[in-house]
Amino acid sequence: MKQISLLLLLCITFGNSVLAQDKDAEQIKKIYDQALTQGKAYDWLNYLSNQIGGRLSGSVQAQQAVEYTKSQLDSLGLDRVWLQPVKVPKWVRGTPEFAYFETSPGLSTNVDICALGGSVATPLGGLKAGVVEVQSIEELESLGKEKVEGKIVFFNRPMDPTLISTFAAYSGCVDQRYSGAEEAAKYGAVGVIVRSMNLRIDNFPHTGSMGYGDTPVSKRIPAAAISTKGAELLSTTLKLNSETKFYFKQNCKQFNDVESFNVIGEIKGSEFPNEIIVVGGHLDSWDLGDGSHDDGAGCVQSMDVLRLLKTTGYKPKRTIRVVLFMNEENGLRGGNKYAEIAKGKNEKHVFALESDAGGFTPRGFSFDCSDENLKQVLSWKSLFEPYYIHLFEKGFSGADIRPLKDDGIVLAGLRPDSQRYFEHHHSENDTFEHVNKRELELGAASMASLVYLFDKYGVITSAK
Amino acid sequence: MKQISLLLLLCITFGNSVLAQDKDAEQIKKIYDQALTQGKAYDWLNYLSNQIGGRLSGSVQAQQAVEYTKSQLDSLGLDRVWLQPVKVPKWVRGTPEFAYFETSPGLSTNVDICALGGSVATPLGGLKAGVVEVQSIEELESLGKEKVEGKIVFFNRPMDPTLISTFAAYSGCVDQRYSGAEEAAKYGAVGVIVRSMNLRIDNFPHTGSMGYGDTPVSKRIPAAAISTKGAELLSTTLKLNSETKFYFKQNCKQFNDVESFNVIGEIKGSEFPNEIIVVGGHLDSWDLGDGSHDDGAGCVQSMDVLRLLKTTGYKPKRTIRVVLFMNEENGLRGGNKYAEIAKGKNEKHVFALESDAGGFTPRGFSFDCSDENLKQVLSWKSLFEPYYIHLFEKGFSGADIRPLKDDGIVLAGLRPDSQRYFEHHHSENDTFEHVNKRELELGAASMASLVYLFDKYGVITSAK
Repeated sequence: MKQISLLLLLCITFGNSVLAQDKDAEQIKKIYDQALTQGKAYDWLNYLSNQIGGRLSGSVQAQQAVEYTKSQLDSLGLDRVWLQPVKVPKWVRGTPEFAYFETSPGLSTNVDICALGGSVATPLGGLKAGVVEVQSIEELESLGKEKVEGKIVFFNRPMDPTLISTFAAYSGCVDQRYSGAEEAAKYGAVGVIVRSMNLRIDNFPHTGSMGYGDTPVSKRIPAAAISTKGAELLSTTLKLNSETKFYFKQNCKQFNDVESFNVIGEIKGSEFPNEIIVVGGHLDSWDLGDGSHDDGAGCVQSMDVLRLLKTTGYKPKRTIRVVLFMNEENGLRGGNKYAEIAKGKNEKHVFALESDAGGFTPRGFSFDCSDENLKQVLSWKSLFEPYYIHLFEKGFSGADIRPLKDDGIVLAGLRPDSQRYFEHHHSENDTFEHVNKRELELGAASMASLVYLFDKYGVITSAK
Repeated sequence: MKQISLLLLLCITFGNSVLAQDKDAEQIKKIYDQALTQGKAYDWLNYLSNQIGGRLSGSVQAQQAVEYTKSQLDSLGLDRVWLQPVKVPKWVRGTPEFAYFETSPGLSTNVDICALGGSVATPLGGLKAGVVEVQSIEELESLGKEKVEGKIVFFNRPMDPTLISTFAAYSGCVDQRYSGAEEAAKYGAVGVIVRSMNLRIDNFPHTGSMGYGDTPVSKRIPAAAISTKGAELLSTTLKLNSETKFYFKQNCKQFNDVESFNVIGEIKGSEFPNEIIVVGGHLDSWDLGDGSHDDGAGCVQSMDVLRLLKTTGYKPKRTIRVVLFMNEENGLRGGNKYAEIAKGKNEKHVFALESDAGGFTPRGFSFDCSDENLKQVLSWKSLFEPYYIHLFEKGFSGADIRPLKDDGIVLAGLRPDSQRYFEHHHSENDTFEHVNKRELELGAASMASLVYLFDKYGVITSAK
């Protein structure tokens, strides 16, 4: 009798779980179908990219983007849409940069450069000096003051093409861009030129943030990125003639902080309104392209997550919030402000998902969470297989949501195919025509499906 | 004592198997490193696409492609390179097609069309008639002679955007293109216009093969593809005015068969030279673009497989053969001829791999084989994970290698990401700049890795 009861119980439990999986599969199919037939992400991105363009923090375009995305969220019939004020830095590129190298007086070759974000200007008439090429900050240190003083330091370590994740290759190089000027200034360098973070050889210089650490203002030296083709040319030229001089001119400038906003919308949870799920991207971008992949794509996908849940008739149990963060690129003020306010209000965030790795075909997600939480995610893996979403691994989530990290939250990042990303990232080549509609929509649907599952089943909390 | 021996045996077996996996991982890493740093595929494709261009069977360009790829294989130091003669059909597009629709006399709108491959020409002065729009061959049949006679039939069923594999969406539509004219002629239609097999709305008409079945020559009607944007425009116009007339003019022509070649190169196996592994793509392409994705990519990847094995110092046990098949697009003569000769010589083919789904990021492979063979492949799955190769499923291999099918062979197809493929396929938009170097190289490395494993471990043969 006892055994029969047990069998019955097992049947019911197993039956229910199969039923639940079927229902989940059905809801997820609805989400993908809706995204691929009625998705809004691509239209929104078209507007952000082609009607507004690059949206550097503190710019008029950033403000236009705030207003546009808020108006679009307003139109979705969410429970609440608001702007969260945040002070952001304002750095302005100024007139187009100009550079050449000179192998002998009068014999010069123009190359494509752009100021790094946060750099100081060159003197008004530009800066000309001899060049020391190094592969790393360690090599710079080994050369010492004697060989560096009065020179422009040229950091030329390329991204490693053998790393399959191009983000890993980026991580292996970006210290040159971020800290190159700070380090070179210690040895008396007068300027810094950094090879663009791009695996392809082409003419686009790629900007990105840099910092001076505690270098006094008077000792800060200008820093620019050179295109990969320019870097190859300069390196070859230096091997032929080590006396080659480099000239560059840029008149970028840091202004006082200005007020800007995170753009937020939410659907109130029906059962656990105090448990908050965040999905987001960053609304600011660099100024050179139109910021379509970085991170217009992540913003419009995140907006579409809420719309997809609504239009497929799903009523969230938890509060689902889209957050378009301001100032990820050169300050992270939006991400920090959002976390600070959430903490101040004692809000309970259970899951946060960021899309900030381009609008390419989604391959999966990486998770910053406990083993137990990852196990929960892996139990959903088969639900994603029909959509070719295979990657569920531990790793980085996203810069804007990271300040929310604590023991009770699962952080995740969408992982699109990364092979083309750094051909666009932070350059004039990050434009709308390089985003594919279906790829973008598949990303939005994948995100909405994961949000749906976390909303429905909640996040396992470890007994600690 | 017996237990100790068993334990020892287990340790040795397990140890050896770990060692073997390590060695395999090492060899596969060598292959990927070599492909991503010294790969030749992209340079070869550049030549094929930009110096030669579209390579329709029987064209001068097809002959140039034969000579070029043979010369490149000659330079690799393979054991043998040869041309395998094969008679191919020769269909020529002629002067550019021209089309418009007319809502009332003199009020016309031009649209982009192209003749379908194998179609007959229109009368010299073109063809003008009323239009019947249908979604399927079934709908055509239901209309019958009364509504179809004297009309141009417009097949307008779009690819299904909710199918994640765009190849599945293609399969669901391509009957309109292949059999539309044959079917419509039965009901007295005078011409056929088919919506292009493209998920995106744009102005590119996409050609592709069609057949007339046993329709007598005198009853054959001309067939053309219209761009998706043109199809939408025409469909809307017909709803507003069902009297709209369509005009098109094309002077394509079928000539007598001409001689062409499969291009073949091989490395002789050191242990089992009579067991043959084939890797290939098709060298012919449609004439509208330059055939970069379809199937220049597959050809240069296949060529690079042999080079990658050689340059990483691997000595194959079995004979590894690259075959660049001629005439996949409109006849499959190359694939059939290759299989016929292999059979005639009693050659034992154990594994064949085709790349004919574009040069995009590889996602995995599909296999036409027994469950037992698939199990063998799945035992290698973890070796591919570092390269984000996740998909190992049963399915279609490739048109050119399919004639080799018998009980003793494993057939496989490379499965690249398919989202962008049909924006290029068979159209003027299939050009070199849409192929990404790293994505192409990753495909070549994935193929070489699978060939390496099948070469090293052989193919399991079922006891039947």
